Amino acid sequence: MNKLYVTKIGGNVLDDDNALNKFLKDFASIQAPKILIHGGGAMATKIGNKLGIESNYVNGRRITDRETLDLVTMVYGGLINKQIVAHLQQWGCNALGVTGADGNMIKAVRRPVREIDFGYVGDITPDSVNSTLLYFLLKQNVVPVFAPLTYSEGQMLNTNADTIASVLAISLSKHFDVRLIFCFEKKGVLRDVNDESSVMRMLNEAEYKRLLKEGAFHDGILPKLENAFSAIHSGVKEVLIGQADDLVRNTRVDTEGTLITL
Amino acid sequence: MNKLYVTKIGGNVLDDDNALNKFLKDFASIQAPKILIHGGGAMATKIGNKLGIESNYVNGRRITDRETLDLVTMVYGGLINKQIVAHLQQWGCNALGVTGADGNMIKAVRRPVREIDFGYVGDITPDSVNSTLLYFLLKQNVVPVFAPLTYSEGQMLNTNADTIASVLAISLSKHFDVRLIFCFEKKGVLRDVNDESSVMRMLNEAEYKRLLKEGAFHDGILPKLENAFSAIHSGVKEVLIGQADDLVRNTRVDTEGTLITL
Repeated sequence: MNKLYVTKIGGNVLDDDNALNKFLKDFASIQAPKILIHGGGAMATKIGNKLGIESNYVNGRRITDRETLDLVTMVYGGLINKQIVAHLQQWGCNALGVTGADGNMIKAVRRPVREIDFGYVGDITPDSVNSTLLYFLLKQNVVPVFAPLTYSEGQMLNTNADTIASVLAISLSKHFDVRLIFCFEKKGVLRDVNDESSVMRMLNEAEYKRLLKEGAFHDGILPKLENAFSAIHSGVKEVLIGQADDLVRNTRVDTEGTLITL
Repeated sequence: MNKLYVTKIGGNVLDDDNALNKFLKDFASIQAPKILIHGGGAMATKIGNKLGIESNYVNGRRITDRETLDLVTMVYGGLINKQIVAHLQQWGCNALGVTGADGNMIKAVRRPVREIDFGYVGDITPDSVNSTLLYFLLKQNVVPVFAPLTYSEGQMLNTNADTIASVLAISLSKHFDVRLIFCFEKKGVLRDVNDESSVMRMLNEAEYKRLLKEGAFHDGILPKLENAFSAIHSGVKEVLIGQADDLVRNTRVDTEGTLITL
């Protein structure tokens, strides 16, 4: 099977024009089928503030009310997504910007209300992915660029970008040898959050669970780790967590980041 | 060659939820390859006002400065485009929302500065369309839904939706028998702008030029007529201008609107 790079990029890069330009140039240079998933960054909050849209959080998790949904649909699905596509096209990469609604590629289930109503949030599993069209696009040398949005019942929904990256990687492992790469601001998963150089070259599940119990991980890394281990369990050959700057190395064998293993 | 319906929908329908829902249900029911192009409507101006973005016009034409470009990218390319896609998916129509940047489908030229600098506006011709991917998508029963945005040199650009509809129709006439349908609020092109029932069943070029000289046409209809005649001249088999409500009839032989002829 051919190699496929499923790459997720987050706010730290999206919010920095120079870092984003460098990243997109690097991404465009990868000579293989590839998919990019982007998060949202600070832009939605910035524009939301100007529009007087309050950010509501419960237990550190954002509530996506109607106004917030429209905001993220336009900022993530429109502004950021299309700016990325236009840049990639300039580097000769045939990018096609999409959400889960487009081509019915990721059909979610709206999160049921339990103690908290998270609003317009979509929950997904690998079975949420309709991979036929995606596979066809990849075969046509098109590079899908996913915004962190899915849909259900005629309704757009907010969905975590790390989760989208993971379910796409799992679903496409039917057709490709997938390397799933989570790119963020650190060089990898740090053994000591206060020591930037303490990158774990590898992290297996037993060690992950042990460190999780100890509370050793920074909050921001938790969704990546959860999604990374879910992917490794579900047929994704290789999962890496590393720095956006190291993207090109992280598509080769001389990787810099943290390799996730069973 | 197979039939292809290239359908353009404008502000009067986009700004009315009931009208839009009815239109999308009708559009989804068309049993043939089809493309939808949507305009923008009032939403961008409404959101722009909240963001304090001034609308600048010269000779009745909007100047697309940087702020305005970002605004239309997010509102047309994000909010409106994805809401339409999500609705169409609910009606069983496999919609894929795109701009000209996505898949490099419409690569524009930024309008050169002459007496007026229109800003980030993209000019296009039928040669601006890269129809290979479009053709493959249509063969896969995907329904492309175009927002009125193109791109050039890594930069998104604002482009008139009627013009996008026309160049897509012309370009795809290589592969399909195209009927290009401009949907708006009147039942067709009116002989007398004050008489809603004075629909011209047909309009040929000589009559069009005569009435143009007389100033008989309402301003709003002019870009549609210009683009309609350009399409008829360039290989599009059938061009209709009619009411959004009459869409289904206008895809058959018992059309209601105005048929444009050479």
